[in-house]
Amino acid sequence: MRITGLDTFDVRFPTSREQHGSDAMNVDPDYSAAYVILRTDAGVDGHGLTFTVGRGNELCVAAVGALRDLVVGRSLDGIRQDFAGFWRSLVGDTQLRWVGPEKGVVHLAVGAVVNAVWDLWAREAGLPVWRLLCGLSADELVAAIDFRHLTDALTPDEARALLTVRAAGAAERERDALAHGVRAYTTSAGWLGYGDERVRNAAQHGLRQGFRHFKMKVGRDRRDDVRRAALLRDVIGPDCALMTDANQVWDVPVAIDWMRELAPFRPWWIEEPTSPDDVLGHRAIRAAIAPIGVATGEQCHNRVMFKQFLQADAIDFVQIDACRVGGVNENLAILLLAAKFDKPVCPHAGGVGLCEYVQHLALFDAVRVGGARTDRVVEFVDHLHEHFVEPCIIVDGAYRAPERAGFSIEMRTDSLRDHCFPDGAVWRR
Amino acid sequence: MRITGLDTFDVRFPTSREQHGSDAMNVDPDYSAAYVILRTDAGVDGHGLTFTVGRGNELCVAAVGALRDLVVGRSLDGIRQDFAGFWRSLVGDTQLRWVGPEKGVVHLAVGAVVNAVWDLWAREAGLPVWRLLCGLSADELVAAIDFRHLTDALTPDEARALLTVRAAGAAERERDALAHGVRAYTTSAGWLGYGDERVRNAAQHGLRQGFRHFKMKVGRDRRDDVRRAALLRDVIGPDCALMTDANQVWDVPVAIDWMRELAPFRPWWIEEPTSPDDVLGHRAIRAAIAPIGVATGEQCHNRVMFKQFLQADAIDFVQIDACRVGGVNENLAILLLAAKFDKPVCPHAGGVGLCEYVQHLALFDAVRVGGARTDRVVEFVDHLHEHFVEPCIIVDGAYRAPERAGFSIEMRTDSLRDHCFPDGAVWRR
Repeated sequence: MRITGLDTFDVRFPTSREQHGSDAMNVDPDYSAAYVILRTDAGVDGHGLTFTVGRGNELCVAAVGALRDLVVGRSLDGIRQDFAGFWRSLVGDTQLRWVGPEKGVVHLAVGAVVNAVWDLWAREAGLPVWRLLCGLSADELVAAIDFRHLTDALTPDEARALLTVRAAGAAERERDALAHGVRAYTTSAGWLGYGDERVRNAAQHGLRQGFRHFKMKVGRDRRDDVRRAALLRDVIGPDCALMTDANQVWDVPVAIDWMRELAPFRPWWIEEPTSPDDVLGHRAIRAAIAPIGVATGEQCHNRVMFKQFLQADAIDFVQIDACRVGGVNENLAILLLAAKFDKPVCPHAGGVGLCEYVQHLALFDAVRVGGARTDRVVEFVDHLHEHFVEPCIIVDGAYRAPERAGFSIEMRTDSLRDHCFPDGAVWRR
Repeated sequence: MRITGLDTFDVRFPTSREQHGSDAMNVDPDYSAAYVILRTDAGVDGHGLTFTVGRGNELCVAAVGALRDLVVGRSLDGIRQDFAGFWRSLVGDTQLRWVGPEKGVVHLAVGAVVNAVWDLWAREAGLPVWRLLCGLSADELVAAIDFRHLTDALTPDEARALLTVRAAGAAERERDALAHGVRAYTTSAGWLGYGDERVRNAAQHGLRQGFRHFKMKVGRDRRDDVRRAALLRDVIGPDCALMTDANQVWDVPVAIDWMRELAPFRPWWIEEPTSPDDVLGHRAIRAAIAPIGVATGEQCHNRVMFKQFLQADAIDFVQIDACRVGGVNENLAILLLAAKFDKPVCPHAGGVGLCEYVQHLALFDAVRVGGARTDRVVEFVDHLHEHFVEPCIIVDGAYRAPERAGFSIEMRTDSLRDHCFPDGAVWRR
């Protein structure tokens, strides 16, 4: 099977009109995707996307286009024979690399393309991506990872050894994953600007759906955060987990001060308390506010940054994103790093398509890498799933394991058409 | 004066045809610029550019365009009244920020636009940018800086105090700068792939020009690096400085091992020994190879990263780049951080336009921030200067202080026209 074409789409949902998803940093997101379809000579397409929040999506679309010549003409077999080499050819293009490197627009584009290749492989294999990954040998998984700039923390041999050790019990964990999925948490009760009644209703709704973990946005107004934290803790009771998320708005001293004020409500974690680039800042915050945990990752731009967050013991929860880094291959490295440093991986989701994507990574992590652990929870936001051919399914507060072949990221044809920016029906109105 | 328009140009020089400027990571650069002209209602234009090495330049051009609505319509007075606020409006656009944040394509674009505003201000004031900066009060300089995510290392009050202390002797240092400029180093003798004769000739030429600091590229072939290091040390003698630059190709353990082999030739620094994101990696390398110093910065993507390199004592030399970060305003923060942590600032240059830009920043640093120090050297590569209206001038191994009003970054009209990609005369051939 050979890749014969690469089509791109600038897809945007006008979510800012309804103020869903607003937080202290991202006040008016239009959930968007730089969407890519890889065409092949076998009649099978591979789908991928990278998530953005509106303006700038056109830059990611253009960056996907800039990768076209590195992808079109490649055979799926050729890619699989040296997947790490293919991956490096995308991030290491001798000219394009300069405008990253391995970060921002060009790296988001790599995420979309690489994930589309995995979608293609999974469709050819007739398996959902998570089961495809679970079926690969330790050698095959290691061969998909570019270890450049990682070997001071994780070598290929260490990765192989870890995967071999964790193979014990994998079959049982896979049965468990099929039966129960992976535990999710909800962000839907905690958006900024929700009044008492809306918070209470949303939290009670979450409890009825089987959620035991509730996340709230913080960082815009201290008194309002205290109000909503008290309310949420009251509704969910003492045994559920309450998480907080500041979306990077604080400086280090402010983060420490603010979280001490929220401490009485026993937050399980504070997410993105400061700049996503600030490893040492997160370490300082973590040391000051324990036992509140520190989480970050949705804007952690590559494996080298995750490596340092782990080496410095700066975080408690590793929040991988499906497309911020260079797709599945780089996330394999990050899952292995997290396992080596014994930290749970709690993927970021929401937006558009992220829930569909990360369920696969979390299931694979549970079966093959991180293994069974009670502190792995995957974000869930109940929004925009209807636009996907195989929307994720939540049962009893857990993601049910996807069954269809692929990465669950194919958008419905009508949704894709109507939301193209700026000429789709939704935007012409 | 009001900004009434923003024009962009995709300018590329086919340097890869001659293999100038190749190193272990960037083997075939076409030195390029996303070039911007701000039009005003006063008949004065502001020029800026961000440097790239070819493919991907179109993404930076598009990103500059994405900033248009945040710039056009603003008055120069309004910007100056809250320059930090203007700067944050560019990096903090509520949607565009997602595809950085503050890194990669969108941040390179901010660098071009912000520098163009400084060019405009300097032209209006009738001063070169370095003298404009030297004439600003501590309060005015501090007011141009966005301290977000910095205050655990540097507060506005600390910055103001530092500038006030360093005001002592500034007038004398400014006279010295006018008389002698700032010391430069040459990279021209040390490109990869140069044979013995070419290395020897280039180094001897450098000595005759008055250079006392010579940089060589390393990292592709260990034996070849030893050969060229021995040769260079032989030609320049024991008292000149020999610097090395690996352009990020090594993992941490490899960097340590390789530099130990080059230690007999007494390198003053190793530049970019590993990933530009790897603060902890640089720290480990520095600890292992002392007294060889560690330098980085040309791809250090923002002030938060520089902050950590300094907090962690991971580097000896702070290599600011004129446009990798968000232009003059963010470089002010970085100069102040370097001064607080007592590290010399040795700007990255070369490419196209970088020498013209950074001479202003180095002169300002010498006069007002870092003060007089013998370990401040500015990169110089003798290449493509003829395309600028006011090319930088090297006399006796030092940059002579520019005298014309502005940032020295205005490209000649014919050069701009002929090198536009892909339709300029140079590319149509």
